[in-house]
Amino acid sequence: MFEIIDPSLRAFVEVAPDSGFPIQNLPYGIFSTPGQGMRAGVALGGWIVDLHALERAGLLPVADEARLFGQGSLNAYAATGRPTWAAVRARLAALLSGQDPRLRDDADLRVRAFVPMEQSTLHLPFEIASYTDFYSSEEHATNVGKLFRDPANALSPNWKHMPIGYNGRASSVVLSGHDFHRPMGQLPVAGGAPAWGACRQLDFELETAFFIGRGSELGTRIGPDQAAEHIFGMVLMNDWSARDIQRWEYVPLGPFQGKAFATSISPWVVTLDALEPFRVDAPVQDPAPLPYLREQDRHAYDIELTVELATAGGARAPIARSNFRHLYWTMPQQLAHHTSSGCNVRAGDLMGSGTISGPAGDAMGSLLEMTRNGSQPLALPDGSSRTFLEDGDEVVIRGEARRGELRIELGSVRGRVLPARD
Amino acid sequence: MFEIIDPSLRAFVEVAPDSGFPIQNLPYGIFSTPGQGMRAGVALGGWIVDLHALERAGLLPVADEARLFGQGSLNAYAATGRPTWAAVRARLAALLSGQDPRLRDDADLRVRAFVPMEQSTLHLPFEIASYTDFYSSEEHATNVGKLFRDPANALSPNWKHMPIGYNGRASSVVLSGHDFHRPMGQLPVAGGAPAWGACRQLDFELETAFFIGRGSELGTRIGPDQAAEHIFGMVLMNDWSARDIQRWEYVPLGPFQGKAFATSISPWVVTLDALEPFRVDAPVQDPAPLPYLREQDRHAYDIELTVELATAGGARAPIARSNFRHLYWTMPQQLAHHTSSGCNVRAGDLMGSGTISGPAGDAMGSLLEMTRNGSQPLALPDGSSRTFLEDGDEVVIRGEARRGELRIELGSVRGRVLPARD
Repeated sequence: MFEIIDPSLRAFVEVAPDSGFPIQNLPYGIFSTPGQGMRAGVALGGWIVDLHALERAGLLPVADEARLFGQGSLNAYAATGRPTWAAVRARLAALLSGQDPRLRDDADLRVRAFVPMEQSTLHLPFEIASYTDFYSSEEHATNVGKLFRDPANALSPNWKHMPIGYNGRASSVVLSGHDFHRPMGQLPVAGGAPAWGACRQLDFELETAFFIGRGSELGTRIGPDQAAEHIFGMVLMNDWSARDIQRWEYVPLGPFQGKAFATSISPWVVTLDALEPFRVDAPVQDPAPLPYLREQDRHAYDIELTVELATAGGARAPIARSNFRHLYWTMPQQLAHHTSSGCNVRAGDLMGSGTISGPAGDAMGSLLEMTRNGSQPLALPDGSSRTFLEDGDEVVIRGEARRGELRIELGSVRGRVLPARD
Repeated sequence: MFEIIDPSLRAFVEVAPDSGFPIQNLPYGIFSTPGQGMRAGVALGGWIVDLHALERAGLLPVADEARLFGQGSLNAYAATGRPTWAAVRARLAALLSGQDPRLRDDADLRVRAFVPMEQSTLHLPFEIASYTDFYSSEEHATNVGKLFRDPANALSPNWKHMPIGYNGRASSVVLSGHDFHRPMGQLPVAGGAPAWGACRQLDFELETAFFIGRGSELGTRIGPDQAAEHIFGMVLMNDWSARDIQRWEYVPLGPFQGKAFATSISPWVVTLDALEPFRVDAPVQDPAPLPYLREQDRHAYDIELTVELATAGGARAPIARSNFRHLYWTMPQQLAHHTSSGCNVRAGDLMGSGTISGPAGDAMGSLLEMTRNGSQPLALPDGSSRTFLEDGDEVVIRGEARRGELRIELGSVRGRVLPARD
């Protein structure tokens, strides 16, 4: 069911050999140029291939009048479903390799279709319909549970039975590159009334997320083995978190303002087709989950994830390394649980993995974990140290998958902390 | 700043004297008729006044080319903000009373503009941008806390310092009249692994909710005294809850599938202008909240709320009575807290009050409270009893405000429980 592009295929335009956007990737995004408004494209090396230009030229297997790619979001295209996604991907591989010569041999169309990435502005790829965040890394949940729960019973009793998740705030999902002001909020004061002030425990969270393409009807469920019909693709995500605000507010109804000021995602949506060559086993689950969460074809993807911290003083250091494959609950299980009550999903729903920690010592996806809630500062190469993020700090998350010569990037998501505004 | 319509004013069309939709109300909704698609209207007695017809005739103080009222939702109109809302309301009062004769004296336009309500289909009034639910009734939080927390410390330590709220699921917000299947889910089993099954503790929650009209920018806050510039109006809400699913899932990240299968709202959005005559003092707050939650003009509205239960066997009984005025945290405080971190709001955001219980004995907004978590069954007039909802049960919530001769309805929200689908 996945449209895998032959690893030996090459684009007819120049693509740097070390690019993470080879013809085997073709991630989707929304872009604009000075002369023309927002439209959809796929990344190919340093180019954006303008899908609206190809659509208007009648080269894509979608109804011309639909104008699926001439909109300010991918929602309408993603809603069409996997058969259309597969047909478009196969056609793009043929057109961009020259196996189908209609683009290669049309000089006018080539000028319109290949837009240099550096002359473009990227936008949120989807209109975010709703945003859900899961909590699916056993190591992260254990690390957090040891800090705030009983170290001997770090996981809550439900954790191994369901992919715990919560509804997040969709309006504050922003694109990579959005710098944000340190949030204000209610800060806990030991034994007394809370104080109003700027967050003192600002953190990042290393996550991935997937977008729903084809939706479902209210009152129906999606089984894990049908999930790939609905999942359009993946992005990187930084779920910025105000730990002090969150700690004071979250009992009994969960995170609210502690995670409502910014959630950053990467601009390019990488399809499951592009990730298929990097399929690996997902962790064995014990106890076995209930039948509605059991997968015939349980798998993860081998995606290396890194976090880099750059300070206002000029220090720049990798501070964490993890892998998507560590997640205990897979995306199909997350989606199956999300619809288990009959809850419907819609094109543009964004579903986060939760912080992705892992078994290795440096595989911690948040400062909360790395510094043991601020008690063990992290040393940086310029001699400074961090417990939590300081003003001017920039966090960059990157993701890539490698197998032999093939390298696929999820790209990067970055954001910088600006001073609080009282 | 509120556009109050003189209580002595009368419409020139027939409106039953006991109607809760007199010319002083004019709530907004979205409707369609067999011959024409979705558009906006206001309710007036048994009529829907077609605002798109008035807009096309050039009688409303909005730009004609905007077609604000010819859409399938109120989002675009609500986003214009209070000055436009006030101008439209003043014009409608003049047109519908005949003080401005242009509608009254135009026979063709009258035929287009007055649509019998029973010939219309109502739709969700807004495209729900996001849905947030608060927990703002002290009596409800205390009742629940006594059941599940320490009876001597029923309220969580943060409760009197902030309007506790959480992000709910926007996709499953449905219009009054939507019947839904009892949800399936993970049910807790004492001391063991959970079971998959149909919810056994299905409940209603008596709530009101408000819609955001004018939005805000990410990174800015809305003070409580600016809230009326952003709040478009109110509806009734039934936040159906699967108590067993919720109890097992909600630690540590809050309600998820236990409240994701249906949330019902009433079709007519009643403006703050219409509610202004029913203004009363809101409860005194002790301790005083932090400055960002302090109101210059703190007030509530005197809105009587009732819950009726109708069984498949034909029993029909009022089971609860409460009042909006009991809420400890007001809508302006809820909105101020929601934006305290810089979180932006958007037209179509739906914000629920939380279950509205009250000090009187029958002022309990859920079966959970009435039956003490199922331990004290509720007797019904047909000799049956309820701990939680059974298949075939219908719940109807109504709301109205009275002052002298003036009576304003919020209308009603109803829904029926259908059997689970495995």
